Amino acid sequence: MSQINYMPDCFNSLTEAFAKLPGVGPKTAQRNAFYLLQFDRETAFNLATHLTEALTKIKNCKLCNTLSERSTCDICSNETRDPSQVCVVESPADMLMIEQSHSFNGFYFVLMGRISFIDGVGPKELAFESLLTRVEKDEVIEIIIATNFTAEGEATAQAIESLLLQKNSSKRKKVARLAKGVPFGGELEYTDLGTIAQAMRERKRGS
Amino acid sequence: MSQINYMPDCFNSLTEAFAKLPGVGPKTAQRNAFYLLQFDRETAFNLATHLTEALTKIKNCKLCNTLSERSTCDICSNETRDPSQVCVVESPADMLMIEQSHSFNGFYFVLMGRISFIDGVGPKELAFESLLTRVEKDEVIEIIIATNFTAEGEATAQAIESLLLQKNSSKRKKVARLAKGVPFGGELEYTDLGTIAQAMRERKRGS
Repeated sequence: MSQINYMPDCFNSLTEAFAKLPGVGPKTAQRNAFYLLQFDRETAFNLATHLTEALTKIKNCKLCNTLSERSTCDICSNETRDPSQVCVVESPADMLMIEQSHSFNGFYFVLMGRISFIDGVGPKELAFESLLTRVEKDEVIEIIIATNFTAEGEATAQAIESLLLQKNSSKRKKVARLAKGVPFGGELEYTDLGTIAQAMRERKRGS
Repeated sequence: MSQINYMPDCFNSLTEAFAKLPGVGPKTAQRNAFYLLQFDRETAFNLATHLTEALTKIKNCKLCNTLSERSTCDICSNETRDPSQVCVVESPADMLMIEQSHSFNGFYFVLMGRISFIDGVGPKELAFESLLTRVEKDEVIEIIIATNFTAEGEATAQAIESLLLQKNSSKRKKVARLAKGVPFGGELEYTDLGTIAQAMRERKRGS
């Protein structure tokens, strides 16, 4: 922002706090602050209240590491789910997406991040210890790695795979990765070439 | 959002509050909430604190109607500025932009909105009464209308102009509007046709 700023200090502090959100620059931050103070003080109040409430109440689930109000989250305490499968995801948002796809009924482990050397996040910064503890249990038979298919997500998947191979030398537990390929409903003409090449390499032969 | 949601209630309330911000949909709202709770609890705390502080401290300046911590804002209490000019803008953000252009040294009046029949904002909802009181003062000689050049901004400008004409039948005070035309540094090839037509109609003849 420019040096010229006739706004009150507390307004500028508010703008700076908004600008720390992902993908929010100084202009959007300022627009948020103006909007809330001018037109929607109720939302401003709710936002402050719910932020404070969430900061106090929300911790990590002791089993799957997702955000939860209780020490064990709703999914981990659900006894009707299949204990033989654990799906490893980067974030609670990814977990919600898989849940909404109705394609999985096992348990999850949420890494809360991905390996990113640029951001200084290596295996030590992620919850790999808790992941091992979680999947070491006897009832776990299959571990499905569902990190994103970005460079960082793939690096994370490889790190998890080699870790699990070390600890699981008897190969009693199966390790899988989400399938890569042309998206559901996808037309080849509008699919990027990397995806087509990938789908060709990993083509599935009739059995 | 889907019905499937294993997130804690206070997390969902936080997401809903974020989704009330301008231009923020459910996905971005959820990303903000995840990000703050997972990676940046300090910013979450600052945001809550500064929101509460701004809600308590920030009111409208009694002279120009902008957001201010004091009853008279910094610009209105600056005695070195030119009292003969008052510039009417829609929002404090617009006021900041004009200040940063270093092209104006008078005082402002901030409407805090624009006429918009879709949103139910007519002349009554805007601070037209305070605007009249502000510009009625003897020292005010010129009123510069600097609302946006959108349909709503133009409607607001016209409403203000006719209001001022009524009250100022002696035409002692001049009423002006920001110039319209091709932007500074603009190339005709990349300027939209409406702007070119406008610049042609309002062409300036050598005097």
